[in-house]
Amino acid sequence: MSKYIYSFGAGKAEGSAQMRNLLGGKGANLAEMASIGLPVPAGFTISTEVCTYFNAHDRNYPPALQEELDTAIRHTEKIMGRHFGQPDNPLLLSVRSGARISMPGMMETVLNIGLTSKTLPGLVEHTSNERFVWDCYRRLITMYSDVVMEKAAGISPPEGQGIRQQLDRLMDELKEKHDYEYDHQLTAADLKSLTDAYKVRIKDVLGKEFPDDPMEQLWGSIGAVFASWDGKRAVAYRRIEGIPNDWGTAVNVQAMVFGNLGENSATGVGFTRNPATGENAFYGEWLPNAQGEDVVAGLRTPNPLNEASRNEGNTLPSLEELTPHLYKELVDYRNKLEEHYTDMQDVEFTIEDGTLYMLQTRAGKRNGMSALRMAVEMFQDGLIDKATALQRVQPSQLDELLHPMVDPEEERTHNALAKGLPAGPGGATGKIVLTPDKAENLAKQGEKVILVRTETSPEDVHGMHAAEAILTSRGGMTSHAALVARGWGKCCIVGCQDLDIKLDRGEIHVNGMILREGDVLTLNGTKGLVYQGALPLIAIDPAKNENLKTFLEWCDETRSLGIRANADRPEDAAQARQLGAAGIGLTRTEHMFFEPERIKHVRQMILAEEPEERRSAIMQLLPFQKEDFRGIFLAMEGLPVTIRLLDPPLHEFVPHEKSHQIKLATDMGRTPEEIRSRVEALEEFNPMLGHRGCRLGISYPEITEMQARAILEAAAELVREGHDARPEIMVPLVGHFKELQNQREIIDEVYEEVRQSIGEIPHLAIGTMIEVPRGAVTADEIATVADFFSFGTNDLTQMGCGFSRDDSGSFLPHYVDQGIYPEDPFQSIDQSGIGELVRIAIEKGRRVKADLKLGVCGEHGGDPASIHFFHQVGLDYVSCSPFRVPVARLAAAQAALKQGTKP
Amino acid sequence: MSKYIYSFGAGKAEGSAQMRNLLGGKGANLAEMASIGLPVPAGFTISTEVCTYFNAHDRNYPPALQEELDTAIRHTEKIMGRHFGQPDNPLLLSVRSGARISMPGMMETVLNIGLTSKTLPGLVEHTSNERFVWDCYRRLITMYSDVVMEKAAGISPPEGQGIRQQLDRLMDELKEKHDYEYDHQLTAADLKSLTDAYKVRIKDVLGKEFPDDPMEQLWGSIGAVFASWDGKRAVAYRRIEGIPNDWGTAVNVQAMVFGNLGENSATGVGFTRNPATGENAFYGEWLPNAQGEDVVAGLRTPNPLNEASRNEGNTLPSLEELTPHLYKELVDYRNKLEEHYTDMQDVEFTIEDGTLYMLQTRAGKRNGMSALRMAVEMFQDGLIDKATALQRVQPSQLDELLHPMVDPEEERTHNALAKGLPAGPGGATGKIVLTPDKAENLAKQGEKVILVRTETSPEDVHGMHAAEAILTSRGGMTSHAALVARGWGKCCIVGCQDLDIKLDRGEIHVNGMILREGDVLTLNGTKGLVYQGALPLIAIDPAKNENLKTFLEWCDETRSLGIRANADRPEDAAQARQLGAAGIGLTRTEHMFFEPERIKHVRQMILAEEPEERRSAIMQLLPFQKEDFRGIFLAMEGLPVTIRLLDPPLHEFVPHEKSHQIKLATDMGRTPEEIRSRVEALEEFNPMLGHRGCRLGISYPEITEMQARAILEAAAELVREGHDARPEIMVPLVGHFKELQNQREIIDEVYEEVRQSIGEIPHLAIGTMIEVPRGAVTADEIATVADFFSFGTNDLTQMGCGFSRDDSGSFLPHYVDQGIYPEDPFQSIDQSGIGELVRIAIEKGRRVKADLKLGVCGEHGGDPASIHFFHQVGLDYVSCSPFRVPVARLAAAQAALKQGTKP
Repeated sequence: MSKYIYSFGAGKAEGSAQMRNLLGGKGANLAEMASIGLPVPAGFTISTEVCTYFNAHDRNYPPALQEELDTAIRHTEKIMGRHFGQPDNPLLLSVRSGARISMPGMMETVLNIGLTSKTLPGLVEHTSNERFVWDCYRRLITMYSDVVMEKAAGISPPEGQGIRQQLDRLMDELKEKHDYEYDHQLTAADLKSLTDAYKVRIKDVLGKEFPDDPMEQLWGSIGAVFASWDGKRAVAYRRIEGIPNDWGTAVNVQAMVFGNLGENSATGVGFTRNPATGENAFYGEWLPNAQGEDVVAGLRTPNPLNEASRNEGNTLPSLEELTPHLYKELVDYRNKLEEHYTDMQDVEFTIEDGTLYMLQTRAGKRNGMSALRMAVEMFQDGLIDKATALQRVQPSQLDELLHPMVDPEEERTHNALAKGLPAGPGGATGKIVLTPDKAENLAKQGEKVILVRTETSPEDVHGMHAAEAILTSRGGMTSHAALVARGWGKCCIVGCQDLDIKLDRGEIHVNGMILREGDVLTLNGTKGLVYQGALPLIAIDPAKNENLKTFLEWCDETRSLGIRANADRPEDAAQARQLGAAGIGLTRTEHMFFEPERIKHVRQMILAEEPEERRSAIMQLLPFQKEDFRGIFLAMEGLPVTIRLLDPPLHEFVPHEKSHQIKLATDMGRTPEEIRSRVEALEEFNPMLGHRGCRLGISYPEITEMQARAILEAAAELVREGHDARPEIMVPLVGHFKELQNQREIIDEVYEEVRQSIGEIPHLAIGTMIEVPRGAVTADEIATVADFFSFGTNDLTQMGCGFSRDDSGSFLPHYVDQGIYPEDPFQSIDQSGIGELVRIAIEKGRRVKADLKLGVCGEHGGDPASIHFFHQVGLDYVSCSPFRVPVARLAAAQAALKQGTKP
Repeated sequence: MSKYIYSFGAGKAEGSAQMRNLLGGKGANLAEMASIGLPVPAGFTISTEVCTYFNAHDRNYPPALQEELDTAIRHTEKIMGRHFGQPDNPLLLSVRSGARISMPGMMETVLNIGLTSKTLPGLVEHTSNERFVWDCYRRLITMYSDVVMEKAAGISPPEGQGIRQQLDRLMDELKEKHDYEYDHQLTAADLKSLTDAYKVRIKDVLGKEFPDDPMEQLWGSIGAVFASWDGKRAVAYRRIEGIPNDWGTAVNVQAMVFGNLGENSATGVGFTRNPATGENAFYGEWLPNAQGEDVVAGLRTPNPLNEASRNEGNTLPSLEELTPHLYKELVDYRNKLEEHYTDMQDVEFTIEDGTLYMLQTRAGKRNGMSALRMAVEMFQDGLIDKATALQRVQPSQLDELLHPMVDPEEERTHNALAKGLPAGPGGATGKIVLTPDKAENLAKQGEKVILVRTETSPEDVHGMHAAEAILTSRGGMTSHAALVARGWGKCCIVGCQDLDIKLDRGEIHVNGMILREGDVLTLNGTKGLVYQGALPLIAIDPAKNENLKTFLEWCDETRSLGIRANADRPEDAAQARQLGAAGIGLTRTEHMFFEPERIKHVRQMILAEEPEERRSAIMQLLPFQKEDFRGIFLAMEGLPVTIRLLDPPLHEFVPHEKSHQIKLATDMGRTPEEIRSRVEALEEFNPMLGHRGCRLGISYPEITEMQARAILEAAAELVREGHDARPEIMVPLVGHFKELQNQREIIDEVYEEVRQSIGEIPHLAIGTMIEVPRGAVTADEIATVADFFSFGTNDLTQMGCGFSRDDSGSFLPHYVDQGIYPEDPFQSIDQSGIGELVRIAIEKGRRVKADLKLGVCGEHGGDPASIHFFHQVGLDYVSCSPFRVPVARLAAAQAALKQGTKP
């Protein structure tokens, strides 16, 4: 027979912290605290299995429950020395939910259960505090009528007409009548008459009497908590958070203790270490003569626990000063808890008439800075091992550390002007500019600017680079602006729909306000918030943070997955290297095409009618590209640099605005009509599936030849000079092995010439992107002509799922809401679908070439969940934006720990 | 030791017809004819292995070849009773190429080898025909200098300056000098002096003497033929035809016989059955006193072989009349050949001075009509078995039969006005109309019209349907016009770039000519040719053709693959059924949305801002859709009908032209600005990967609900009335099983209501398209919620290869030219790539659901090579356009025969 109820108290417990699934987080920790001898008010936990049974059996309980409950109550009574429902010094109980994972505010609580016409006098006598008792009774009636009775009656009252609101209004009327400002001005007599009025109203509205039987109160409360698991709010919350419906909640029934019994009573919360800084110092606050909810409500300024917890300007006495013996007892418990849980704990305590009770403990929430410091120090103090330390910091917390951020204290005092999508994390402040040229010019003059655009295109890149941050009114998390900004670790907000940009007037209209170029904005790119004016930013320097250095070294010892970065310029490559990248996984060559002195040759090439003309135009780019690659090879000396050949469709390089076309026509000695017609000819119905990637290099082999020559000559010259340049030439968008074969022949031929004229490149590799589904399923054929594969999971997701990332905004959010995809597959790789294509490609590729090097260079390379997947399927490396490298190092280490492949 | 040379003659041969790979087609058949006792001029074949050796060993021969050649010459001499190089009655030889597969005109031939200063007089004496001998010598010199000497000299003369042209000019000068009009006016003396002049010129230009040694002539010729295998032309031809380079050619050396020795000599060609009609009657023509090339050249009108071969108006005597004994001998050989080869043969013969020689036999080329008749009759006559009969007709030949065609005789006498892509086969004639409305109106008045458009869109469908044929100036083989026309079996030419359509003026400018609306055109959709005026069409009625009926019954007995049709309307369904479809594999519901009284509701739905408004608009379509489905179910009584839920993106249903938008605004009581902005909001960067397919039904469940209700109510009512309606509801564009689950829940719910209110539908199935790569690789998950899969290989190709079919014109033709893809993957399924996705899906799908029904409904369903593939991977059925059903029945039968799964 199943056991349904687990008791705790008096230094013992039937449950433990390990029984979280059965007892919920709260119940498991109450049991654990009791076991290790902390003064927990006695009580018991009804297991989650009862919840499941209850909701599956039309709200009936397992037959054996009644008897177990009686036993548990007797056990609690015995420890507490009071009796439930007994007139003389009665035991009061609380009923609280407690799921496996905290679902704050989603489920119900009822306090002070057991107060009836019979027990009220006994409690008054015992506490000598009549007002306190009637106030307890008032609270019980309010909660019970709302949580239990209204729901049981199946009533859905209109907004503001719920029983709780009606009772609250009765109290307000009474206060008005007596001209009271605060609740505490109500006297015992007031409260007594109020409870009478409450009961009349309840009978009126809900058609039933408020129960005067303690067991009825208890069963009603237990049932209400279990039923709330299936309530609308809780179900919606679980769908969003991905919590399974069949987990269920436990119910904790516990003896009431009161921090509001008088000046000898108090209540407080504490963190075993400072949650903001991670400092190893007990930190907390408390209120004399108060209940827990008063601390949370924040209506009274709390006292500090000790000097370490004192905020500037707070002169209230600390617990340490006022009652050193109780403080010392609390510190003992704090030490015991940290030692026992080996993690920073968030605790609640109550002092009832001079006796200290511990009400709750759980792992404390913390920010990135403190998580890192605690992890490092707890290992150094021997509290935890290294593996545990590595799992104590979330990758997102590390990311938080690496960007300047808007000072949260300051941010709290400002209202946001507008909200968009948080496309690039961190904070930035600067003057509004509306064109990339202006951004570049002002930045050159040393101004900090924020580039504000409807959306960005590759033609804007110079201005985007010059700006502190980018703000767009359109586009999603994978729009051009978002991708480019993340690549640079730059603050960016996209899809900020409230902005109406009047480019011709130099204005932005936003929620009825007009901003002008030159006005200052502050962006919080982590949250997507836009503020008017300059808010202060705070930042740490990762290079100077010893904890970070130590922690990342531990990551590197632990992980087996290599981490590279995506970088297009030598300075980005250098930064990536400094952040720990062991190579470049993706250098996009097309950005190099946009600089003014280059773009004209690119356009000449595109407009060329004869192969010779095209060839001569493209060869003009050779010296530029060669110089680009030389710089990157030098920055990454001794490490591999994967360079992708030209990828985007040619129409991205020609102007689409009429005035620009006319200018180009003049520059090129053509008619505007010729330019227009060529631009039109380049337009495609589905550019994503059009003439791009290696298809360009196959149609125009001279492009491949030029790029190969630039890469190989730069590398060979460096090698000749004694450097260690390691180029990996990557052919994009290969779906058929013959495409790669075709491009490889050109590259091989160029290398043969370079080898003879300049010299060998010992570490040269030629490989391909796997980003076309056909490429994935024919990876065995492709592997025969590739030295490496790099998964382009962005495009693989687009083609594999048949979602255009530019268009999926019309249905994908709805898909995620509906749970069709658990997450946006562009944010975190779709493991069962796109992941299957990756698995197929790995299996087929390695079958014919066991030493095939495998990596990923899509956006997913910086996403922790995706990194876990890539580790698990056996990739050699992931490549991500330079600023994500530390995050990826941590995620890779955690993946290795999870799989148990490393200590 | 290898044998290199195979002799034949005098009723014996070392080779046989089975040795085609070694001896080439020509050599193998010469050997075979000799073996079965036909009078073949003796000779021998040098095997293809020698060719391979020769080209791999820097044009050297295997050492043993010399000796084998000497033996073979002696053998030939013995049979012919003459000696090679011997002055008295010399043996002359021909040297001809002969590869495994005929490569017409790609390789070299040298005739009359063995004529030298020593042998000329002997031949004159023997033939008593001096002019004949010098003419032979002139021909030898011309061929040899061109084929052997010029090539050996490594000279690439400028255009028109080749040695052959120079020699031809010498002859022209001589003719001019003597004022001759024809070659035959040249006397023996003229020819003698001409050959002298030839030799001088050859020495001058090529620096070498024309060889006067017979063996040197023979070796030179053999080497030239082998070398020609690696010639530029032959290599290019093989690349196009997909013939492997390592096959090599054989060389046939054979005794010369002459049909031009005088009035007792003749030459002719024959077919053992009539190649145009298939009638079992010997058919051919001949020329007295002529060489084979004269028949081919067509300068003289040839005599008929017999009365059965006589063309109208030809009064020349037949061979049967003139020389009955020789004709009888020829008929004997004809019978022997048919019996031996059990197929219609194309033969060449020569009569030299009253002696009949058979020079060549090979399977005769035939058109569809004759192929069908011969296959059926040969089986009925016991000549071949049924499996052979089924393999004697190509699917394309059957297709040819099923469409009216431009009379080829008439077509030969007309020049095409323009050429486009042959998108819909058959012929059509009609008046030019430039708008779909006009097409519909004129067609209603009984006019035959041809709709000419730049390109077509779904808005044009009514006019396309009304027209006899469709002609567009843009678009490729899978453009909208091409797809729709093929679906209807309608004649269609697309991408006819010479057309410049001036819609406003009602004119078409084409190659300098102006056509107007109302002018008559004729289209040959099989070849893509456009003619001015009305050319006569010829047609057979498939329903009345007994041979076709019989033949298709044999196909059905033989095949295991089911054949269904794609049809959107009851009349198309009925036609499909008549052509042998065992069900409908795809009914597209969107075409039904375009009729005028419906489209307004569709647009109302699209413009709706509230779900209720959308719902009420969409529900207006219910009665229309129900009626559509009822008609199709009735037409297909007892057979399954697969209906696809709405698939195209909504922007296809709204007007994009400003004037139409203004009209719509007026109709809907909106502002044009509202309409424009909604239309713009629907625009997508990559509509192919956008908001379409089941994504619509998930965003707007009321669409799915309405369509499911229309299908299910129509079917349930029919069942209640005693009919056998078998709906299969197909959800498009499923990539994730939860998408199908979502849609299936809606359909199941509607069915539950219909079942209760109307009644059961015993043969209801609910399944999905597999057309998204993710769907293919997660087919195991999808199969858990699907009753069937239908592969949408069009979209699977687009997404799997990453090719937009609308845009791939910019690179795909080049890809096919370069051999990257062997064929356009939209025409014939890419078996190794997209086919692999299909294989993966089948394997995964059947693993979890063994009885999962599997079909294909993409364009590939009607392509014979693709049908072979689908048979092989184990699909249950293919679905194609109604007019392709007979073709598919044949292809499926041939696939079964190939795999040996059926007798």
